[in-house]
Amino acid sequence: MPTDTTSGAGRTLGVAMIGYAFMGAAHSQAWRSAGRFFDLPSTPRLQVLCGRDAGAATAAAARYGWTEVETDWRRVLERDDVQLVDICTPGDTHAEIAVAALEAGKHVLCEKPLANSVPEAERMAEAAAVAQARGVLSMVGFNYRRVPAIALARKLVADGRIGEVRHVRAQYLQDWIVDPQFPLVWRLQRERAGSGALGDIGAHIVDATQFIVGDQLAGVSGLTETFVKERPLVSSSSGLSASAGEETGPVTVDDAALFIGRFAGGALASFEATRFATGRKNAIRIEVNGSLGSLAFDFESMNELQFFDAGVANDVAGFSRVLVTEPEHPYMSAWWPPGHLIGYEHSFTHEIVDLVRCLAAGEPPRPSFADGLQVQRVLAAVEDSAAAGAGWTPVATD
Amino acid sequence: MPTDTTSGAGRTLGVAMIGYAFMGAAHSQAWRSAGRFFDLPSTPRLQVLCGRDAGAATAAAARYGWTEVETDWRRVLERDDVQLVDICTPGDTHAEIAVAALEAGKHVLCEKPLANSVPEAERMAEAAAVAQARGVLSMVGFNYRRVPAIALARKLVADGRIGEVRHVRAQYLQDWIVDPQFPLVWRLQRERAGSGALGDIGAHIVDATQFIVGDQLAGVSGLTETFVKERPLVSSSSGLSASAGEETGPVTVDDAALFIGRFAGGALASFEATRFATGRKNAIRIEVNGSLGSLAFDFESMNELQFFDAGVANDVAGFSRVLVTEPEHPYMSAWWPPGHLIGYEHSFTHEIVDLVRCLAAGEPPRPSFADGLQVQRVLAAVEDSAAAGAGWTPVATD
Amino acid sequence: MPTDTTSGAGRTLGVAMIGYAFMGAAHSQAWRSAGRFFDLPSTPRLQVLCGRDAGAATAAAARYGWTEVETDWRRVLERDDVQLVDICTPGDTHAEIAVAALEAGKHVLCEKPLANSVPEAERMAEAAAVAQARGVLSMVGFNYRRVPAIALARKLVADGRIGEVRHVRAQYLQDWIVDPQFPLVWRLQRERAGSGALGDIGAHIVDATQFIVGDQLAGVSGLTETFVKERPLVSSSSGLSASAGEETGPVTVDDAALFIGRFAGGALASFEATRFATGRKNAIRIEVNGSLGSLAFDFESMNELQFFDAGVANDVAGFSRVLVTEPEHPYMSAWWPPGHLIGYEHSFTHEIVDLVRCLAAGEPPRPSFADGLQVQRVLAAVEDSAAAGAGWTPVATD
Amino acid sequence: MPTDTTSGAGRTLGVAMIGYAFMGAAHSQAWRSAGRFFDLPSTPRLQVLCGRDAGAATAAAARYGWTEVETDWRRVLERDDVQLVDICTPGDTHAEIAVAALEAGKHVLCEKPLANSVPEAERMAEAAAVAQARGVLSMVGFNYRRVPAIALARKLVADGRIGEVRHVRAQYLQDWIVDPQFPLVWRLQRERAGSGALGDIGAHIVDATQFIVGDQLAGVSGLTETFVKERPLVSSSSGLSASAGEETGPVTVDDAALFIGRFAGGALASFEATRFATGRKNAIRIEVNGSLGSLAFDFESMNELQFFDAGVANDVAGFSRVLVTEPEHPYMSAWWPPGHLIGYEHSFTHEIVDLVRCLAAGEPPRPSFADGLQVQRVLAAVEDSAAAGAGWTPVATD
Repeated sequence: MPTDTTSGAGRTLGVAMIGYAFMGAAHSQAWRSAGRFFDLPSTPRLQVLCGRDAGAATAAAARYGWTEVETDWRRVLERDDVQLVDICTPGDTHAEIAVAALEAGKHVLCEKPLANSVPEAERMAEAAAVAQARGVLSMVGFNYRRVPAIALARKLVADGRIGEVRHVRAQYLQDWIVDPQFPLVWRLQRERAGSGALGDIGAHIVDATQFIVGDQLAGVSGLTETFVKERPLVSSSSGLSASAGEETGPVTVDDAALFIGRFAGGALASFEATRFATGRKNAIRIEVNGSLGSLAFDFESMNELQFFDAGVANDVAGFSRVLVTEPEHPYMSAWWPPGHLIGYEHSFTHEIVDLVRCLAAGEPPRPSFADGLQVQRVLAAVEDSAAAGAGWTPVATD
Repeated sequence: MPTDTTSGAGRTLGVAMIGYAFMGAAHSQAWRSAGRFFDLPSTPRLQVLCGRDAGAATAAAARYGWTEVETDWRRVLERDDVQLVDICTPGDTHAEIAVAALEAGKHVLCEKPLANSVPEAERMAEAAAVAQARGVLSMVGFNYRRVPAIALARKLVADGRIGEVRHVRAQYLQDWIVDPQFPLVWRLQRERAGSGALGDIGAHIVDATQFIVGDQLAGVSGLTETFVKERPLVSSSSGLSASAGEETGPVTVDDAALFIGRFAGGALASFEATRFATGRKNAIRIEVNGSLGSLAFDFESMNELQFFDAGVANDVAGFSRVLVTEPEHPYMSAWWPPGHLIGYEHSFTHEIVDLVRCLAAGEPPRPSFADGLQVQRVLAAVEDSAAAGAGWTPVATD
Repeated sequence: MPTDTTSGAGRTLGVAMIGYAFMGAAHSQAWRSAGRFFDLPSTPRLQVLCGRDAGAATAAAARYGWTEVETDWRRVLERDDVQLVDICTPGDTHAEIAVAALEAGKHVLCEKPLANSVPEAERMAEAAAVAQARGVLSMVGFNYRRVPAIALARKLVADGRIGEVRHVRAQYLQDWIVDPQFPLVWRLQRERAGSGALGDIGAHIVDATQFIVGDQLAGVSGLTETFVKERPLVSSSSGLSASAGEETGPVTVDDAALFIGRFAGGALASFEATRFATGRKNAIRIEVNGSLGSLAFDFESMNELQFFDAGVANDVAGFSRVLVTEPEHPYMSAWWPPGHLIGYEHSFTHEIVDLVRCLAAGEPPRPSFADGLQVQRVLAAVEDSAAAGAGWTPVATD
Repeated sequence: MPTDTTSGAGRTLGVAMIGYAFMGAAHSQAWRSAGRFFDLPSTPRLQVLCGRDAGAATAAAARYGWTEVETDWRRVLERDDVQLVDICTPGDTHAEIAVAALEAGKHVLCEKPLANSVPEAERMAEAAAVAQARGVLSMVGFNYRRVPAIALARKLVADGRIGEVRHVRAQYLQDWIVDPQFPLVWRLQRERAGSGALGDIGAHIVDATQFIVGDQLAGVSGLTETFVKERPLVSSSSGLSASAGEETGPVTVDDAALFIGRFAGGALASFEATRFATGRKNAIRIEVNGSLGSLAFDFESMNELQFFDAGVANDVAGFSRVLVTEPEHPYMSAWWPPGHLIGYEHSFTHEIVDLVRCLAAGEPPRPSFADGLQVQRVLAAVEDSAAAGAGWTPVATD
């Protein structure tokens, strides 16, 4: 008795993915898995993977489960079997691809940061607004919003469980380039990456905290630093490794960025993003203090949310370690019994679920390109402040 | 340019899965994902899902990605396109299916506990030995061995990093039946489940600790208890919920089991398995103390291993919280960058990877049916001890 | 303007302390400090310190603040300026001193374990009962009852906050004799110490858990082990250090003891006391699971109590880390503002406060000698069980 | 046989304490206890307690163990039996008392912050320099330097164990005035307290971090905020409580202050001090990231230091939880066996020990008044920056 091995109500969604590195692997798993655990209004078809190197792209497509390969993203936009373009390339290509895709009538999921500059991001947000009027939708990939503990944090704040927000503090701490011999990869070059820790990981905590508190940063004072100013060039033969005597080149992005600021609603903010926090691998730490309670999160324990409820009697009050694996928790009824953890990649699966549902319902998904633009403006304000000696810098608005 | 969307070197492995509840969902995700992240010598084909209810089985097959459906497991064994049978049914059916499958020349992966009784397990282990001589292999699904932190613990012990093992203490704590109104599901009935907390979750920590220390329990003194002796029957109409006035029935398995014991090598052991640890959802906690160091693990933080190295200078000695997400850690180079966590289901993916590799190499996978039998004998010794008033009871050996 | 530098309402309590090692230092600090932070009905006078070595005792008295020195404890009992005798000597001397002191009309505080054997403890409990009829009171020094987090745990259980108790698990883990070259000090000799880990530290967790749950162990099955059977003799010249080539002697007490058991009220119990848990320094870990909630404590974080309240809504339920430093918490209003921790020695100060208040009120303090005897009977049942191959052994009652 | 109940080699040090509130209780315990656990070159005599209200001061003296009382601090300076003045009054009185005491030839221990303004602090530092030339010494009471975990952190940095320091982040989080009905106590009034969270608790983390890294902040950008701008006046009759309908007054200090900055040696800094972090009672959290390792501390677990050693092999690398209770750790050999914690007040005892030893040796104790002045200048730079819109502000130097 043969079965239809795809879920969904018969409708399918043809997807093309541009780029296939780290993010490509994560997105592919999400596209493959979303309908296996969640009820979707249409079934994603992993139609085409696009990469400039035909051989590598073909291997990646086989590995990740994509049916076909293209080597020119413009060809992808001409295909009728593609309804959505998933952009997983470095930031310097986002604007061109995304705008063209939207104009071609394709829905777009674009990895973060939305773009490498505010003007690019503005162009993308404009294109998204125009497209949306035609029913063509777009989303930027701040996947951490879909970590259940962060979604729960958002819900608790929105429900008033911590009252008026007074403090937001967030750090995104990594350590992968502490070694000065680590080579000059593309993420350390401004022309490719736009910025360093600020745009790569700072963008995530700006989005995640604004999402959680339901408010936006109004102004900042920031500092950036490049601790290791020259690094070995990546030799064409050896990939990431560098040999003695090889040439070096300048690191043109920040190793670390930190800033203080104010939210529009009056909360104080303290942020830090760094690739030099020795021993911290992917520590996204977020704390929110309100008049009635507090929340704390650390991605190194991503299935937990700490919650302090000031309404609890003083003799038993304390931060509760909520294991966010109950069916009542966002996204979790689709997975395993309580106490069975999920991982990093599940945030992408949840992102795809929400996106596919929005597309079917004709509702604009969030975070939108406008949300991505606003994050970009926060990052630009931090860079401007840092360039001008850490002076106060308002975040631009429309 | 079309691609082959399956990985592997062209060879495939036809899989049939019997049963499709909780374990079926986990196994399916593992079968689908293993080749997407790991290099496999052959590509699993999710050929047929087997369940007695055709409609439900068909829906499950569509959801989980299986090509065909059978309603009689005996039919599965007759199929030439099936090389491996994955048994995900309750324990009372394991022996019959597994022995028949092995005799039919199918490799077998059987969920734990291997069987509901020692005689059944003995029959299975014998069948496995006979089959192995013919190149037909088998494995029992103690998936927690494939949690990277537990695999790392095993490696550290085997490498002598904690010296001679003196203490093993393990607890598997859940709380899903604390409410006395929770109904009399099959897991609370001896004829279906064999035992309660002891076989369901106690089996896991017996296997995991024996795996980590590379030794076996020699004898035990145990206690078991059924705190809630009568529960509402599951009404056919309402699934898990029970209404007032409904009939009740006796709980015929243990709610909790605990025992002390000795390993063959002299280490002292303390074990506890319970479904009445209010607030603990799936807390598998394992500690091992050796003459040169110690290890501690808690599944509620499954990506971490605590390691104490007695060789470190006293002023900085302490338990290190090792985030088991480095490429050096077991299984982890296939996944994400350091600091990006994995979840419960990944243990099954790793299990499948190891199994498929063993099959290709013709090497007997572990844990074997003999390993499963030995765990069963430990559980039986605990039950015998408890029945005889907690007296000392040696664990049977061949 | 001169002041009376002692607190209290003019009455004083003359105290004599027998023994002045580790416990002597802790008790002295408690006697000196109790009235500085708490309102006491009478002011302790540190009247006389007693030790066999006049020189060492005199130095200790000066260091610890005692007015006079005696070298024979029998002389202490003849003094009119002594109303209370505080026994800090090894366990083999407790019975003789305590019984004589009670007969001499002195109140007695006796360090734990109450005695080295049940018969001794029985004699002491009888003497205490006789003395109490004459208004002479006694207490055994299970100081951990006076750790605020443990006192809070007791209160929460007594108030019904965790419902019916189902599980008690406790471990007292140390590692100070893991090194096989650690010498054969008196604590490793049965004739002085009575037993090893069992009596020294196991006694504490037996008392603490029985105190918390308000119930007593009814029966046990136990194991004991001596991992290192011979150790270097302590050379008279070098104190604790041992030189190569020196003689060794047999360790005649247990290095580790573990047992399972049942409380009279039906709760299951799992206990472990060991000096071989490498990396654990003084880890007293206690967990209690009830039908409505759970508690967890670890002395390595002694100012915290973990509390799970099953009545909290599932989306925010979790173990709360209660920082036990609020004025509402037992003993804490006498100390510092919230968040300012206290330490180990404070448990003794609280013990003295409670004792002095009881003496003034004529109320028998707890834990009584009868409580100490009952703990001794539990320890004896564990030893008997271990000697008889871990069979079930009821705890003796009166 | 009578004994001399004071320790030390016969010499004594006459101490006068001005003020006797919270800090007075802590200092008194430290003065009483220092010689009981540490070998001191001279024995502190608690000679005179000074307070304006004779009755209250007399009661405090009796409670805390001081021999005499004075009601005018100027009288204290005239006494020959006083060699050291311990200033525990609010900050607006520090300068006058300290300068006069130094001029009178008395050694001075002054609570932090050194003064309420930079000019006052400068005057005090000058007086201290003049006095030091005459052998009269002084110290400011940043007691957290003497928490063993912080002293250990300092030692590890000084020993090069974490390499070049790149990041310092510190927070001092409290929540005692979150309730808007909490009254307008003196700590919320600029004329008495100088500043709010910034001076009261921010001062501690500025000092502690500069101490740990052995470097000073060179410049800052800061924000301050007063969330609750009006509060009930403290009624004379009711102490801290406020009744409905009572008058309110303006809060004239900051509720929270945060800043980013740079250390002279190039490390980036992020600081936050607040009384509005709901659920955090006295959370002093300090992290330092260096090129070879990292450190993390939280006062809510004050007996622990987290240490990451980048030199450890990657498979077992992780933050070690060092329980700072070993004899090898600063100050700890004087206290209890490993694993037995100490508390908040012990930091003052250690402060007294170091001070008394310095006085005897004629060595200037640290932190000096010059150190206190430098902290004051950091705080002033933060205030100046905040007043000027968070612009970059260098920290003044001599």
